[in-house]
Amino acid sequence: MKLSQVGEDRLLEQLLPSLSIRKNVLAAAGDDCAVVKLPQSDNVLLLKTDCVVEKIHFESATDPVLVGWKAMMRPLSDFAAMSGLPQWALVTLIVPATRSTTWVKKIYRGLNSAAKRFGVSIVGGETSNTRGPAVISVSVAGFAEKNRWVSRGGGKAGDDLCVTGRLGCSRCGKHLRFIPRINESRWLTKNFSIHAMIDLSDGLGADLPRLARVSKLGFKIDLESLPLNRGAEIRNAISDGEDYELLFAISPRDRARLQKSWHKKFPKLPLTQIGSFVPPSSLIPHPFPGGYVHFQ
Amino acid sequence: MKLSQVGEDRLLEQLLPSLSIRKNVLAAAGDDCAVVKLPQSDNVLLLKTDCVVEKIHFESATDPVLVGWKAMMRPLSDFAAMSGLPQWALVTLIVPATRSTTWVKKIYRGLNSAAKRFGVSIVGGETSNTRGPAVISVSVAGFAEKNRWVSRGGGKAGDDLCVTGRLGCSRCGKHLRFIPRINESRWLTKNFSIHAMIDLSDGLGADLPRLARVSKLGFKIDLESLPLNRGAEIRNAISDGEDYELLFAISPRDRARLQKSWHKKFPKLPLTQIGSFVPPSSLIPHPFPGGYVHFQ
Repeated sequence: MKLSQVGEDRLLEQLLPSLSIRKNVLAAAGDDCAVVKLPQSDNVLLLKTDCVVEKIHFESATDPVLVGWKAMMRPLSDFAAMSGLPQWALVTLIVPATRSTTWVKKIYRGLNSAAKRFGVSIVGGETSNTRGPAVISVSVAGFAEKNRWVSRGGGKAGDDLCVTGRLGCSRCGKHLRFIPRINESRWLTKNFSIHAMIDLSDGLGADLPRLARVSKLGFKIDLESLPLNRGAEIRNAISDGEDYELLFAISPRDRARLQKSWHKKFPKLPLTQIGSFVPPSSLIPHPFPGGYVHFQ
Repeated sequence: MKLSQVGEDRLLEQLLPSLSIRKNVLAAAGDDCAVVKLPQSDNVLLLKTDCVVEKIHFESATDPVLVGWKAMMRPLSDFAAMSGLPQWALVTLIVPATRSTTWVKKIYRGLNSAAKRFGVSIVGGETSNTRGPAVISVSVAGFAEKNRWVSRGGGKAGDDLCVTGRLGCSRCGKHLRFIPRINESRWLTKNFSIHAMIDLSDGLGADLPRLARVSKLGFKIDLESLPLNRGAEIRNAISDGEDYELLFAISPRDRARLQKSWHKKFPKLPLTQIGSFVPPSSLIPHPFPGGYVHFQ
């Protein structure tokens, strides 16, 4: 069977349970970052790696400064999803030998300004030759407080499901300039009990079912309530992907206080309740076309 | 200027000093792993990422189990170079959608058996589509004791330069089956003061000058003393690369004790003194053809 006939999730499900997981691992594949215990520490260590591939995640003609920005911000968005604080990044640049040094320097300029924005140090750089498209892979390590990091798996039936910002049409430009919701996420976990969280990278239609599956719940969504970017329709909000907004579950008891204090703290950024978690047995007849699915 | 006209070291030298390095970073680009401080801990955190690229580091027809093995063992060899203990790995697999799932499963079988050999947990897996050659990128985090990790920069004039194992002709097969010298490195730092160390991945002709440059020293080498693999000549030992052996600097006062106890502990693995560090001003007329240099 070819990869194009299998989704990424299904493939990784087949591959990863066979891997030996040790006791000091708190979250592994299947969450936004890996979370591991640090001896003698009040923090856990968060690890994440992500890559952008030419002709898949960016066009060859795209401004390389923006490509570098995106390559760094993608894993940082996963830190936002777990309410972690990224600290150090390693960069792997796989580039054809015919590419200009100027292009590579611009990639680094983008990587560096993105890293600076969140106080991340680039502590290692590798380069490799290739005979194919360029790849920029960034892996990031950082911390979260033991009792503060948020997994995908803590949702409760009845929880409100909320998203930050607006969805859809990211490919019009936002996907190259987005700012991961780290500050928003840290504020959320400082002031509220966030039960489960994910960043919307593959589209609501793919990422919400993931969040629900790990939380062992069903969900219902009010499609009309979805906050849309200019030019986007509901189907874009569901399937485009690359929104890099947060989707999280929170008790409805916190609804009034959350809305009020959010708008005070982040007056320019919408926060929208789009639905809720329901018990897993509930049959929700819901036409939910898949989000962007790798290999398909 | 094209990348093919610049070496990897020169390019990274141009790119990396401009990056903001924070105080809790003990070693960054320019050493085998990044080393950062962990608050409240007797350990430092080591971070390393490395990749293998189809048609560059392996052939398309190569057994994917061996490709996975190599992809995991390459960054672990950098842990050996710093006498660190790898703990957790993240895997990024960039594969054309037309590749078979069997191929991917075999890659993971190789990754997993390599990780198990050193007690490393694979805690995350990402996949991405590509229209080019496959890439397997592995990033690893682990520990070393605060006072035990070894950098490239601690060599002293007069130090013996020693290598483990035999050099050259790695492409005959060893590059797909090698075992990083982690146990040997840990034994060395437990029993001796190792001043500087590096793993030989680009060939002695590239890696020894790196070690000397970071240690701000010159070196002399007895080419006739180089331990050669079967079929290898001196030029192979210098330029082939992918030896994944350790090159380290140690006081000549330890020479007798080192040789005696090494041969008792690792009777099947040669340890060879191949030369020594000399003051930086010494002019050593030495025809030292470059090792494998990326992009050239």
